[in-house]
Amino acid sequence: MEIIAIDTELYRLPLVGELTDSRHGVMKQFEVVLVKLGSDNGEEGVGYTYTIGVGGSAIKALVDDTIRELLVGQDADRIESLWDTMWWKLHYIGRGGIASFAMSAVDLALWDLRGKSVGLPLWKLLGGASPEITPYAGGIDLYFPMERLLDQTRDNLAAGFKAIKMKVGRHDYREDVERVTAVRNEIGSNVDLMVDCNMQWTTSTAIQFAKDIRDLEIYWFEEPTIPDDYAAHARIQAEGGVPVATGENLRTLYEFRHMIESGGVSFPEPDFTNCGGITGWMRVAKLAYAHNLPVTTHGVHEIHLHLLAAIRNSSYLECHGFGLDRYMTNPPVMNDGVMVAGEQPGHGVAFDWEKLAEDKGKTGLPSTLK
Amino acid sequence: MEIIAIDTELYRLPLVGELTDSRHGVMKQFEVVLVKLGSDNGEEGVGYTYTIGVGGSAIKALVDDTIRELLVGQDADRIESLWDTMWWKLHYIGRGGIASFAMSAVDLALWDLRGKSVGLPLWKLLGGASPEITPYAGGIDLYFPMERLLDQTRDNLAAGFKAIKMKVGRHDYREDVERVTAVRNEIGSNVDLMVDCNMQWTTSTAIQFAKDIRDLEIYWFEEPTIPDDYAAHARIQAEGGVPVATGENLRTLYEFRHMIESGGVSFPEPDFTNCGGITGWMRVAKLAYAHNLPVTTHGVHEIHLHLLAAIRNSSYLECHGFGLDRYMTNPPVMNDGVMVAGEQPGHGVAFDWEKLAEDKGKTGLPSTLK
Repeated sequence: MEIIAIDTELYRLPLVGELTDSRHGVMKQFEVVLVKLGSDNGEEGVGYTYTIGVGGSAIKALVDDTIRELLVGQDADRIESLWDTMWWKLHYIGRGGIASFAMSAVDLALWDLRGKSVGLPLWKLLGGASPEITPYAGGIDLYFPMERLLDQTRDNLAAGFKAIKMKVGRHDYREDVERVTAVRNEIGSNVDLMVDCNMQWTTSTAIQFAKDIRDLEIYWFEEPTIPDDYAAHARIQAEGGVPVATGENLRTLYEFRHMIESGGVSFPEPDFTNCGGITGWMRVAKLAYAHNLPVTTHGVHEIHLHLLAAIRNSSYLECHGFGLDRYMTNPPVMNDGVMVAGEQPGHGVAFDWEKLAEDKGKTGLPSTLK
Repeated sequence: MEIIAIDTELYRLPLVGELTDSRHGVMKQFEVVLVKLGSDNGEEGVGYTYTIGVGGSAIKALVDDTIRELLVGQDADRIESLWDTMWWKLHYIGRGGIASFAMSAVDLALWDLRGKSVGLPLWKLLGGASPEITPYAGGIDLYFPMERLLDQTRDNLAAGFKAIKMKVGRHDYREDVERVTAVRNEIGSNVDLMVDCNMQWTTSTAIQFAKDIRDLEIYWFEEPTIPDDYAAHARIQAEGGVPVATGENLRTLYEFRHMIESGGVSFPEPDFTNCGGITGWMRVAKLAYAHNLPVTTHGVHEIHLHLLAAIRNSSYLECHGFGLDRYMTNPPVMNDGVMVAGEQPGHGVAFDWEKLAEDKGKTGLPSTLK
């Protein structure tokens, strides 16, 4: 099966309302880079990655100007080899960053193509552990007033979520302790609660905060500080006493290895859109398995649903607030708090091309549309 | 001093002859991304970065589409703050890769602008340790036949070099042992000899090779294996018994920290064009100082000359084979084996814009032009 064409499209799309976290401030748009990979058997693989607002044009340029030439004419079935070809061609300007996003989109397209060609859904193609996965609601709500935060929490419970994540990372962490306490009181003890700091704090603030929320049975404390500081994560887990999740800002298998080996993470959180695609994600998942750790995800739940369904060491699936699934005609649905990976060959995502074209370039939709 | 404009230019330029190393194969072209940064006092700062052939368009896109908007209107004198602004805006798609190259070019332009504004050359602006620096000749010669390798060695000695680096990393490392032995015999014991493996070998091959060349008094063994494997470097130093140099493929301060703290490197080798510019390079140099380690460089010797002249923990300066200095009207010259950092304000590099325009897009100049 020969690769005969690689086409790319860049979309800047509106977020629903203005979302805020501690590190990225107010976000109004996100970007999606789509890759369509044609093969000589007539099938088309579709891959994509996204950014939180910038870098999309550079990702597209890298696919158009370098990866296309590298892959067209190659055997689409030799994914591990193609991955290595991309890795080393891009190595000097790569090992993470834009190169990792570009490779991720292309790699997903390759896996989608394989799924379509052999007639298997992604989750079976990759292992086929169990299709039922439990998602959690990932709020992007750091500066929501308390009432809006609690309203969102009640909405999430009403929607059937069994677990909820909220943002922390305010200038004064005691405000966060107050907000987490309020949400825990609202949801009771039968719903799991995670907190996400988006790398905002120093090691010592993160430890102090963790100690202060320890009695609230926090499921995980996500991105307490910068992802580069493995030793800090180990200290935060050990001294703070709350399990740490991190990985949405780790871009290579090696970064995950260092974080895991340092004892800094209990829930590795690879995101296939930025850690080397399906191939990169599966390597991290197997590394985590070898370390007896469950894996969670970041955004793009329509694909990560397949990945968690493929492996035995799955934790919760994040349902992210960016809402890319608004641009799909068949987004995954949650019933009784569970999502089920589908049986369509490949990833099975059907984009709503008209709606994508319609919203291209728009900024911050009114949140009533949510 | 306000930033009023940021312009970029991308050049694909020919290498002199076809250069080869163990990882990147045959190289015929390299890319230069130039950044011109205008300020409201009428001065212009010029910065640049380069690639080994791909990624230039993505670097340019990131400056044009994101960094320009971020920096125009800002105070050019607040470099640490501007660096942080870029780092966090690009963080999700950054922490190395294309983002690091883009930031590096812009950061050099900021430092050049400062130098011009205050009337000091870079090396004095950054510390002013000592202007005399000893370069070494960096051969890109893995597949040169033995006679050509020895001819190049004799040419380098005749040119006055006090130190020479050669490539290793062949499929059978015993061929490399033979070649290194031949070069050591050619140069005698008064010239320092380095070897560079370009990340080609497994840990065990690198250790075996190091043991086999230990008696040849090798000054350093560069990039023995992949830069992500800190523990491997520590083993290669300890068991192989030859000092290790690495860093041209480390892109962040944190990667240098991990490599240094692991005990994996004796000669950290930051390259300002890819580790965050002058600001990023100086941080690595100070970290190395704190660990009692001398710093060496990678390529772009017209700028690195200033950086090594600025600090107290300087090692050799690499004179690289890519030949960007062919496109300057005032490239640094070597006398009695020494180069001297100049007194022109800023970096003092004057590009030959006509020659750049003339060679744009050309491939692999005949090596007789060298």
